[in-house]
Amino acid sequence: MNTQAYEKRRNYVYDWMAREGIALVMFEDTEGRRDPSIRYLTGQPGDALLFLSVDREAVLVPWDINMASSYAQADKIIPYTEFERHPLRAIKAITSGLQIPYGSRIEIPPVTAYPQFLRFIEALQDYDVVCREGGAAEEVQHLRAIKDEEEIALYREAARITNHLIDLLETKLKEGSLRTEIEVALFIEAEARRAGCEGTGFETLAAGPRRSWGIHAFPTFTAEAFAEPGLSILDFGLSYQGYTTDVTLTIAREPLSPSQKRMLSLVEKAYNLALSLIKPGVESRLVALAVDNFFEKNKKLMPHALGHGIGLEAHEGPALRSRADNEWVLHPGMIFTIEPGLYDPKQGGCRLENDILLTEQGPEVLTTARIIYL
Amino acid sequence: MNTQAYEKRRNYVYDWMAREGIALVMFEDTEGRRDPSIRYLTGQPGDALLFLSVDREAVLVPWDINMASSYAQADKIIPYTEFERHPLRAIKAITSGLQIPYGSRIEIPPVTAYPQFLRFIEALQDYDVVCREGGAAEEVQHLRAIKDEEEIALYREAARITNHLIDLLETKLKEGSLRTEIEVALFIEAEARRAGCEGTGFETLAAGPRRSWGIHAFPTFTAEAFAEPGLSILDFGLSYQGYTTDVTLTIAREPLSPSQKRMLSLVEKAYNLALSLIKPGVESRLVALAVDNFFEKNKKLMPHALGHGIGLEAHEGPALRSRADNEWVLHPGMIFTIEPGLYDPKQGGCRLENDILLTEQGPEVLTTARIIYL
Repeated sequence: MNTQAYEKRRNYVYDWMAREGIALVMFEDTEGRRDPSIRYLTGQPGDALLFLSVDREAVLVPWDINMASSYAQADKIIPYTEFERHPLRAIKAITSGLQIPYGSRIEIPPVTAYPQFLRFIEALQDYDVVCREGGAAEEVQHLRAIKDEEEIALYREAARITNHLIDLLETKLKEGSLRTEIEVALFIEAEARRAGCEGTGFETLAAGPRRSWGIHAFPTFTAEAFAEPGLSILDFGLSYQGYTTDVTLTIAREPLSPSQKRMLSLVEKAYNLALSLIKPGVESRLVALAVDNFFEKNKKLMPHALGHGIGLEAHEGPALRSRADNEWVLHPGMIFTIEPGLYDPKQGGCRLENDILLTEQGPEVLTTARIIYL
Repeated sequence: MNTQAYEKRRNYVYDWMAREGIALVMFEDTEGRRDPSIRYLTGQPGDALLFLSVDREAVLVPWDINMASSYAQADKIIPYTEFERHPLRAIKAITSGLQIPYGSRIEIPPVTAYPQFLRFIEALQDYDVVCREGGAAEEVQHLRAIKDEEEIALYREAARITNHLIDLLETKLKEGSLRTEIEVALFIEAEARRAGCEGTGFETLAAGPRRSWGIHAFPTFTAEAFAEPGLSILDFGLSYQGYTTDVTLTIAREPLSPSQKRMLSLVEKAYNLALSLIKPGVESRLVALAVDNFFEKNKKLMPHALGHGIGLEAHEGPALRSRADNEWVLHPGMIFTIEPGLYDPKQGGCRLENDILLTEQGPEVLTTARIIYL
């Protein structure tokens, strides 16, 4: 990613801060509270704090200063050890170092736990501490939901590698050279890295016919047989410069029961139905509702959402779910999955998931996941 | 794990609730807010809510009801879909279903974000909503920090498998049959599952000499050469029935520079120093401080903590770090790592990490990680 891309994104946040009357925003990326917005805004891929001031200064406080030297772009980089890896010490020192005027609004992450929120209030007594949804973090998440040119180019490459791997998998499954869940999952790990990816974007889920009834089988892969008669699910993503794809193949090997055939047919129909409804300006909730209703009419229940945005996180905006609180509207530049699925303790499960880039002209299906019949 | 173990653990929490005057406690295990305490208390290994009432009822609300049927033990299991996967709807319905009297204290997770906390307050207007550190979640974390007999037995098996794999790795590295970071990392993945583990407990970190300067190299493994001349780091853990080991080997291949030899020697000395200080009743902060001071005397800085508890999470209580806010006291039954390390952008890094079970008699080193000289 070039340096200008980060500056352009930060400029967007600075402008927003000026409009909102926010003097300083803190982001935090740490175990248990991952926030790849720091990578999005600076390039730093690991644990760090990031402070942006309305005076257009970006101060990065990385845990691993060596990593920051290789990856990060910011106006100032201060090792977290200088604050004993303590967010309250860091924010106090940086507020004073940047000469943020008393009384200014300082925004902390909306995921800040209530007890920790009270500590921020105490540590920043002379300031107006803001912790809210709909603030800076969400603004960046909305910005991230609409991919810029650099990101779309990365996604085309990520999809190319993913699609090549899907073809390879189909060949290997057909010739019978990948026989267990482990073999399939580790083949993906190795091929991803050989192709220049950072790795998989999340734990690969390879569930043979005896375990595919789980939405997310547990453990994600085992020594069990894969692609034996019945339904197997393979859900994986490849992370290319931080951006992950997310696809699910179902492998259906004969003999299949009538119920299994019906599940496969309903999932394919639901997939096509969803695709036909995706257009700029459409509320994603309505697309998800249409699929829920389609399954209901057929006396089935899909126990998860229809899809989700992908990017630096495997799950990000926009949401594609039918819950009433889903307010996302589909917009050109968004990249998201659609992934209808059905699961049955006896018949197993099937899911079909591809990654969609929404353009002005409509959905462009970036990936080539499919139901593979053996 | 037998059913009695879960009931015994829940009984501990019920007694605590009675003493604290808490009528209902909610736990949540979800993406971004993982809480394996639900697995600890019920066996359910995936996304779920868990409600415990002072009347000794455990209600599990799993996302994947099929998974719950296979793994979970609770008095009542209600699919999360019944509440449209909405925690506020779930807590309202269950509070009323369990006939929790108005005015009672209901405790929600201490990681609840401030804006969400406000929503809980609103949804449970007739109750006294408690969100605090030092409450139920922490009580269970403290309980989890001291392993019970069942857990120690699981850890002995996890360590046996880990140690066997360390020996295998040494053989393979010496004979030169694992040459890249990918090969080493995927060998571990495959062997872990073949040996009956759920998988690795966290992403394996295999960093050859050109990348070992990172505390946690990024990406965690690549197509680069491993165990070439200089210092390579291999940090991995195996998850056995949910409990993960966590070990780090350093592979030192000649020729080594005087600085590299000195780093190796200092890390080994620090490791032995730490081990000599570990006893029941000792404040873990003092052990970590002694190691920090040892490095400082030798003009080195360790940029991370000395160690951490392990269990259902790769990082849990007790902490072994020198920060003033670390109040952990070492207690028999605790299982934790010690992992001194030094990192240099030019010389690379070295770290030595093993898993310690503290007994009445002192530390028992469960794992056999070591510096391997090639």
